[in-house]
Amino acid sequence: MSAKFSYKTRDARFILKEWLPIDQIFAYEKYRDYYHVEDIDNLLEQMRKITANIVAPTNDDGEEHHPRLENGRVVGPPSWSKVFKYYQENGWGTSNFDENTEGTMPQVVYCFLAEMICAASPAFVYYPALTTGAAKVIQHFGSDKLKSTFLPDMMNGNWQGCMCITEPAAGTDVGDSITKAYPTEEDGIYRIKGSKIFISAGDGDHADNFIYLTLARAEGAKLGTKGLSLFVVPRFWVNPDGSLEPNDVATTGIEQKIGIRGCPTVTLSYGDNDGCRGYVVGEGPDAEGNAQGMMQMFEMMNGKRIESGLTSTGITANEYWNVAEYCQDRIQGRPFNDPRGERIPIIEHTDIKRTLLLNKATTEACRALVSTAYFYLDMSELDPDPERRKWASNRAACLTPICKAYPSDEAWTLMCESIQAYGGYGFTEEYPAARAVRDSKINSIYEGTNYVQSMDLIGRKWMLAKGSSFNEMLTEIETSISQESGLHASLKDSFDKLERALKAYREIQMTVAGWAKEGHFDRVPAYSRRILTASGQLFGAYYLLQQAVIVCNQLENMDETHYDYYFYYGKVLSARFYSHNILPNVWAVAETLQEKDDCILEAPPQIFFF
Amino acid sequence: MSAKFSYKTRDARFILKEWLPIDQIFAYEKYRDYYHVEDIDNLLEQMRKITANIVAPTNDDGEEHHPRLENGRVVGPPSWSKVFKYYQENGWGTSNFDENTEGTMPQVVYCFLAEMICAASPAFVYYPALTTGAAKVIQHFGSDKLKSTFLPDMMNGNWQGCMCITEPAAGTDVGDSITKAYPTEEDGIYRIKGSKIFISAGDGDHADNFIYLTLARAEGAKLGTKGLSLFVVPRFWVNPDGSLEPNDVATTGIEQKIGIRGCPTVTLSYGDNDGCRGYVVGEGPDAEGNAQGMMQMFEMMNGKRIESGLTSTGITANEYWNVAEYCQDRIQGRPFNDPRGERIPIIEHTDIKRTLLLNKATTEACRALVSTAYFYLDMSELDPDPERRKWASNRAACLTPICKAYPSDEAWTLMCESIQAYGGYGFTEEYPAARAVRDSKINSIYEGTNYVQSMDLIGRKWMLAKGSSFNEMLTEIETSISQESGLHASLKDSFDKLERALKAYREIQMTVAGWAKEGHFDRVPAYSRRILTASGQLFGAYYLLQQAVIVCNQLENMDETHYDYYFYYGKVLSARFYSHNILPNVWAVAETLQEKDDCILEAPPQIFFF
Repeated sequence: MSAKFSYKTRDARFILKEWLPIDQIFAYEKYRDYYHVEDIDNLLEQMRKITANIVAPTNDDGEEHHPRLENGRVVGPPSWSKVFKYYQENGWGTSNFDENTEGTMPQVVYCFLAEMICAASPAFVYYPALTTGAAKVIQHFGSDKLKSTFLPDMMNGNWQGCMCITEPAAGTDVGDSITKAYPTEEDGIYRIKGSKIFISAGDGDHADNFIYLTLARAEGAKLGTKGLSLFVVPRFWVNPDGSLEPNDVATTGIEQKIGIRGCPTVTLSYGDNDGCRGYVVGEGPDAEGNAQGMMQMFEMMNGKRIESGLTSTGITANEYWNVAEYCQDRIQGRPFNDPRGERIPIIEHTDIKRTLLLNKATTEACRALVSTAYFYLDMSELDPDPERRKWASNRAACLTPICKAYPSDEAWTLMCESIQAYGGYGFTEEYPAARAVRDSKINSIYEGTNYVQSMDLIGRKWMLAKGSSFNEMLTEIETSISQESGLHASLKDSFDKLERALKAYREIQMTVAGWAKEGHFDRVPAYSRRILTASGQLFGAYYLLQQAVIVCNQLENMDETHYDYYFYYGKVLSARFYSHNILPNVWAVAETLQEKDDCILEAPPQIFFF
Repeated sequence: MSAKFSYKTRDARFILKEWLPIDQIFAYEKYRDYYHVEDIDNLLEQMRKITANIVAPTNDDGEEHHPRLENGRVVGPPSWSKVFKYYQENGWGTSNFDENTEGTMPQVVYCFLAEMICAASPAFVYYPALTTGAAKVIQHFGSDKLKSTFLPDMMNGNWQGCMCITEPAAGTDVGDSITKAYPTEEDGIYRIKGSKIFISAGDGDHADNFIYLTLARAEGAKLGTKGLSLFVVPRFWVNPDGSLEPNDVATTGIEQKIGIRGCPTVTLSYGDNDGCRGYVVGEGPDAEGNAQGMMQMFEMMNGKRIESGLTSTGITANEYWNVAEYCQDRIQGRPFNDPRGERIPIIEHTDIKRTLLLNKATTEACRALVSTAYFYLDMSELDPDPERRKWASNRAACLTPICKAYPSDEAWTLMCESIQAYGGYGFTEEYPAARAVRDSKINSIYEGTNYVQSMDLIGRKWMLAKGSSFNEMLTEIETSISQESGLHASLKDSFDKLERALKAYREIQMTVAGWAKEGHFDRVPAYSRRILTASGQLFGAYYLLQQAVIVCNQLENMDETHYDYYFYYGKVLSARFYSHNILPNVWAVAETLQEKDDCILEAPPQIFFF
């Protein structure tokens, strides 16, 4: 029943202090006077403490007290209000993203706090994270009035922000939304009518108000996504004097989810009594009926996509450390080559080492991917050179679908291995693996399913800036191979694998380009998810090998008595394991794409009912 | 919340009437007067009705009323007692395996009833299945007294049978069990003292008595598995007049499992008041301390291993049909090549077709594997020729670890795809996918974890009869390729893949043999689970292609207006999809084994704590 927070900060420290050129970020004007690379140890330790002491206990509380609907409102887990308030008020949450607050953390640093919070309490994290997402949209696109009305209370933990997109009949095809907005006599204010489903943190007793960022179609706007505007619809209307009054938004249901059960996910109904008002963000639709809602929502969504990968990484990492500890404590069986020897901890059995190395290497690859994306995001927002900002923004964009999908897909497989390592105990709720796997599942589904991500990667991101962004990232891998492959004998084989994978990846791109040329781009959806996985694996291996090169340099000057020896040695083994055991999938995918057999496209629906 | 029974019998009919040479089984003396191939349609339909009408409702009842411990006894789901009684009394359960009952079904037929029951109510199935397993052991190894005392009430639904192996400190390493048995003055009766955990169906209000088949070490017996004897320990002692009195076995706990929650899994304590007695099965340990318990228990266990695969197949198949139906009903998105066209059912989207084909092909491969194993089991028990019996028994033995592990591993991945296809609804308990995936997870863990299976395959089954059994199965694939590969143009490519996979599989065997020769058999556990998966894939593809050849012959004489057209066409697509998309893993594994990088064996436990 009980969750366990087992996050270790050493890899985060390595990424920030030894791998990523973090001084570039700290040199930006915004951070110059506030941060130095030497602060990182302290920062990470402070984050770990807050997470362990304040946030981690919310996990069990959320599982023991599932939110319930009572008299039309949600009652959430008892302890969460106080923790939400504490977290937001003390600058760990939304206010870190306030453009007007000084001394905030860069995203590449903050992402490790976020990873820890997800590791500690995967359901709780939605309270601050969604508020942050909503506040960012208001700050970027909202009028001064919107900012002054909503942001202060969203920053200080009084109010909750939410993202309201999905409808019963419009999920992935958001363009089919039917929630409507009717202009009123007041400028920028619309009457809203419709309903939204799957609204995370959409109601509760932890906030005095809920600020629903809601996609709706203003009267006369175009059909499809182009006609959608974004509205700030508060659950309670904020009067000029600051007092609140009901705004005709009702909670009509609460989902029985399989995971993140502490966080209420609700169904909302807007304007049942024709009394629901919302502020349009920016302008309403133009004379041709084109609206800006989707673009604005994507500002929030893109962040959420990388966050999905971050969340998956945090949950998986925590469970990996939990199962490693279990395997060290659990005595069972005898050495393979000495069946009459003493019983040993199962961590010494080869199949368990395989399980743990698979978890360790993949989680580290995911962490490298996600933190790199945040590094580029910081640069894209703060670099003084606009071209450099654009360059970094494109890099982040290329990595976004990979960061979203790869960790969230792998979480399922990795934690299946954890469950297996616990043996029969893995099948009980007494041990934390089962809950972790349930909590993580949502990440492959929402914020655009992983299929949507895969088509975004191939259809858009490969082509960004005429293909130069993505191609440059591949060239970077090539350069690394030619320059670093010979540096350390222990990595030579792994670099050879990386080279083969890179070649295979380019073949994948050529194959897809060939299909497009022949008018057969419709073949892509049959393989796109596999291509996305291969992308995660290629970049994952590249980053792990980059890290391994740094580590090998260190290892030359230390032996196993050094306190960092096993961490560094473990990094080398991660890179080697990943290159030899995971990377081969990239050329397997390349080969499968060469197939002439179109059985997937050919399959008529009728065959599935026997 | 509600489960749905969606099992379709067409593939079962195909296997029994069109694929497996079932007439060989029906020709055995035991069945000659009772069955004919023409009875199969009726039999399957009768099974489906019983399952749908009587058994399926127990699934929701078990989920709504989790078993609970009250005053030292378990209270189970309310409806299960009646259903258990009905099922057993009417010959659908344990009595079908009674050697003295006439007109029972061959296992290759019965396995489809079992698959349906698992599809309908994965937790309920333990009541009859465990009783059957225990009754079989008593019938094969027990004295006349044991048989007459216990079997009648185990057959008719009065008593429940259980398998008691695991202890808190002895799971996979069962040889470390510490439950003890002390001889009494009565011949064959021992006092039992100890405890057992994870006892499925180990208590409840559905049976008047629980017959615990318990592994324990008699005083003076050897350490390790060799010294374990098997005891029949009734929860209530059966007096000569048939009356029952408590036998000092107590239920000390109930597990909070992640799945199959309707079935109580309990902890048992034996002889807390020194009053627990049990009958040894067969003889007690011999003068040297060697006992027969493990061998006897394996009689039960081997059956349970194939059953694990069968259970996984049933659960996965049912969920596949559920999600297919959902995808047909759910309207979302527009045609890929016509983005302004009408909205379509998602079953027409390519990525969904991929999901469904993956589920369909793999499930059919698993069903083919499992039913083939049962076919050989029937032959091994009933063929008049002892050599033929031995031959069939070896075949079944070779297939057993594959049948156990492959379907139970794949279930997790396949149903993850189902969850994904439901979108956000997949993350709710409202739709059946999440429960199905939880219910299926135990199958990869118990009855010997899938790692244990993988080592059983490589260490024992490859070598059975000096390697001739397994090798003959590979030669059979080779023969099929040379004789059937050219028969149908649509299958040529797929047979080519099978040929490549067979070659790769033999390379895998050569590599492993090479390691053994060099004294490096300890490398095997680093790769054994992957080798097992590859084995499932090789045989799965072979069986699907065998089936496809039969089907192609039929298709030559029909067009799409024929009622069987889409079933047959679907079988061809299953074989093609599986060969092109799944089989490549076999040569990927072969290649990975060529690696010189021993990072898994090299990894010291210390690296896993950063």
